[in-house]
Amino acid sequence: MFKKILYPTDFSDVANSAMAYLKQLKDAGLEEVVIMHVLDRNRHDPVTVFRGDNEAMLEIEKGWEESAMVKMNTIADELREAGFKVKIRVELDSPFRGIVKVEEDEDVSATVIGSHGISNIQEMFLGSVAEKVIRKAKRPVLVVKR
Amino acid sequence: MFKKILYPTDFSDVANSAMAYLKQLKDAGLEEVVIMHVLDRNRHDPVTVFRGDNEAMLEIEKGWEESAMVKMNTIADELREAGFKVKIRVELDSPFRGIVKVEEDEDVSATVIGSHGISNIQEMFLGSVAEKVIRKAKRPVLVVKR
Repeated sequence: MFKKILYPTDFSDVANSAMAYLKQLKDAGLEEVVIMHVLDRNRHDPVTVFRGDNEAMLEIEKGWEESAMVKMNTIADELREAGFKVKIRVELDSPFRGIVKVEEDEDVSATVIGSHGISNIQEMFLGSVAEKVIRKAKRPVLVVKR
Repeated sequence: MFKKILYPTDFSDVANSAMAYLKQLKDAGLEEVVIMHVLDRNRHDPVTVFRGDNEAMLEIEKGWEESAMVKMNTIADELREAGFKVKIRVELDSPFRGIVKVEEDEDVSATVIGSHGISNIQEMFLGSVAEKVIRKAKRPVLVVKR
């Protein structure tokens, strides 16, 4: 029921605070955590996008991925130390679609997600990633608040 | 972290399926469950509301409450058998406001709620009660899917 959990993170404070809940779920049967991060193409500088400079965009995305991998490896170490099996996934997608895709791919038992990400203002107008995820997810979603 | 959980139910299938998750959280430290049901004034027949017949409305609400108490006592028995301390709350309010109020009143560690209630069509247009709850809740919310 909580055996394998998907943990999407944008490395925001609220995403980090979800770690404590993952650890607490160990005694409820949690064995494996899939840590995931989405490289969001919408975060590209509009000028670069307008120029259609794909090479520059790929270079920038490579930088994002490297920086994300450093942070994810730190998280992975912490979860391994807590006794979990860990898998890391990086997706190039919109956050919401990436999360729902991996949820299905990995056939997780549940998802643990922060209520708000780093793009707070955007979410105020368009609704949070968490809200979209609970609408489309197949399995339970634990939404951790700020 | 999961010591005291609020479990709002409208007795729909998805709300019922949340019971299994409550039981699973026992080993993660769950001790007490606050079962709650909201008597939704918006469910009154518009004609009765239009007539402003308060006495009739109170009579109808009394019926709702009695019927809800029977179902809640059955749930309470099941949870007590599973080893939990149980509290029952009935609120006359809109579902979303009632839930957020009791979440704060009872100072729960988390809320476990179904993704959709009985009023499916209404929720399709106005957004689900669960979505509104995760927006306003102070503590984590586990959204159980159909």
